[in-house]
Amino acid sequence: MTGTGPLRDVRAEVDAALRAFMDLQLEAMGPGMDGWPDLAPMHAAAVDLLAEGKRLRPAFCYWGWRAAGGDRRPEIFAAAASLELLQGSALVHDDVMDGSDTRRGMPSAHRKFEALHRAAGWQGSPGRFGEGAAILLGDLFLVWSDQLFQGSGLPGEVLAAARPVFDRMRTELMCGQYLDLLEQAKGEAGTVESAYRVAVHKSARYSVERPLHIGLMLATAALGHKPEDWIDELCAAYGTNVGVAFQLRDDILGVFGDPAETGKPAGDDLREGKRTILIARALEAATPAQAATVRALLGDPALDVAGVETLREIIVETGALDAGERMIAGYLETALDGLAAAPITAEAREALHALAVAATSRRT
Amino acid sequence: MTGTGPLRDVRAEVDAALRAFMDLQLEAMGPGMDGWPDLAPMHAAAVDLLAEGKRLRPAFCYWGWRAAGGDRRPEIFAAAASLELLQGSALVHDDVMDGSDTRRGMPSAHRKFEALHRAAGWQGSPGRFGEGAAILLGDLFLVWSDQLFQGSGLPGEVLAAARPVFDRMRTELMCGQYLDLLEQAKGEAGTVESAYRVAVHKSARYSVERPLHIGLMLATAALGHKPEDWIDELCAAYGTNVGVAFQLRDDILGVFGDPAETGKPAGDDLREGKRTILIARALEAATPAQAATVRALLGDPALDVAGVETLREIIVETGALDAGERMIAGYLETALDGLAAAPITAEAREALHALAVAATSRRT
Repeated sequence: MTGTGPLRDVRAEVDAALRAFMDLQLEAMGPGMDGWPDLAPMHAAAVDLLAEGKRLRPAFCYWGWRAAGGDRRPEIFAAAASLELLQGSALVHDDVMDGSDTRRGMPSAHRKFEALHRAAGWQGSPGRFGEGAAILLGDLFLVWSDQLFQGSGLPGEVLAAARPVFDRMRTELMCGQYLDLLEQAKGEAGTVESAYRVAVHKSARYSVERPLHIGLMLATAALGHKPEDWIDELCAAYGTNVGVAFQLRDDILGVFGDPAETGKPAGDDLREGKRTILIARALEAATPAQAATVRALLGDPALDVAGVETLREIIVETGALDAGERMIAGYLETALDGLAAAPITAEAREALHALAVAATSRRT
Repeated sequence: MTGTGPLRDVRAEVDAALRAFMDLQLEAMGPGMDGWPDLAPMHAAAVDLLAEGKRLRPAFCYWGWRAAGGDRRPEIFAAAASLELLQGSALVHDDVMDGSDTRRGMPSAHRKFEALHRAAGWQGSPGRFGEGAAILLGDLFLVWSDQLFQGSGLPGEVLAAARPVFDRMRTELMCGQYLDLLEQAKGEAGTVESAYRVAVHKSARYSVERPLHIGLMLATAALGHKPEDWIDELCAAYGTNVGVAFQLRDDILGVFGDPAETGKPAGDDLREGKRTILIARALEAATPAQAATVRALLGDPALDVAGVETLREIIVETGALDAGERMIAGYLETALDGLAAAPITAEAREALHALAVAATSRRT
């Protein structure tokens, strides 16, 4: 996916914007400031996490901007890069909530701080220290995100036009994460419908629809246009459908994916007990014996390779995997129909087409 | 303290701004939206927490605005109220990090969600669910804070003038909290000097100096003036000194305060093992036997009334309590000298004087 044109194109610019921003943070919390070098691990953890990532959300934002007639300029890459900081916050806090050990192939932030505590031989619980520090790192990412958005260099009235979408996206993200926690807590009571609701809230809107919408609104305002109906139609048809398909692909990769590609141990989503559309679909079609096995194994932190394999077999045998692939193909088709109908430039249409395929294809 | 004129005056307006904002959030996440009523406990927890609080930070912001010539208008109360949302985030995340059971006399947010999980008989650990939900509630407060600031109704260029201070304040807050975690982890290695550093970062700047500075910058920009040197001088002299004295008062109340006034069980700071200036000062003057007692009792979650009393006696006998009171008086005097020298209106000077006394006096 990293080799795809529209993503590769955006990545270098977004990387540069993030590096410049983190250099600015060194002036606020860095050498010469009171508290340094104690704060160095905090800055380093942020830089390390930001070094990875596919820049998917900034790409949707940038191509939304281009689709509405915006030109290539540094300010839009800075505004788009703010979405990567928001994602950084979500990842760090998500890992604390899930108790995940790894992220993007490295130890998760709270595990890094836990190791720092252990190595220094400090007092108290290394685990509590690690979680506390990671909560604060996620908080930093969260405030940095709107700082970079608001300080992107785009005129105030242009940013103000996209602010309602930016704000709604963030509230939706937190609410979606909470619904996800609830889904796991409710366990088998969860249905395909309620898992779909989480996927829309937590992933589709936040990963695709709102970033695209922000880009569209920014360019519309920058060009002095009024927002037209096709913008909402494109966001609904393309944004939501690519978003849900993207989440479904992520669910499948979380169960069947190669650890070298996902950056997570095989079957980690099963160990965490994630209540995805895939799992809900498998449970709906499971025999009582299969359902009992899922109940016994899903969410077991000590789940071994054999256990992962057993769950994979049930997901295949119940037809949930095939159903998931069919759903992805269906959502993608609807999304591309919506894209074809939008009055946007050929270049943006081509890029958004390629992005939709890349975000939902079998390989990350 | 709530009866003091300059605070009472601001409180009603800030309360109204917060209520209006939380009503707006009901439109984003409330009845009729996908996910409601599952999201109702999240909204309710936010409203409950916001119902309490002294509105100290908004008051410093408002009187900064008035000091630089701003007039009384709804927009400044909305901008000032954004600081109360930031404080909400800090409190909720702080309680998760410290494992605190209570806040403002009620169960802390994570304990409320833990109880919700238990009452519903959901799967998994109630404690983990509670912490996860509280992390998300704190995240909501954090994004709502800049949403309300940016959407206060003040012109974009006026907000932009205060943005660097607003942004710096938030990064300082998170970094200060991290230094506080470190201080506790390092335990006895902490000194009065390092505890002072935490107090400046985590409390003085965030609670007094930056809110005041934001108000001053907003009014300066609103009136089309250039920021003058006296603004920085007032922020340094009054802001930092009132802020550190406020933190010292909080430290003393955390050990000696009446639970009915602090909203926390007696000696809760001792149970949490907080490494305050007061504790650092006591340890510096302690006999080896006293130091051993502090080492054994401080941070013991099961510390009983007798243990609290023993630690209180050591803090008194080492002279730390008297030293703390002397420091508060000294900081307050320096602050009031700085206030007297600033070219501000008599009304603002009087209000800031009363606020400084109220924030640092023996009774909350």
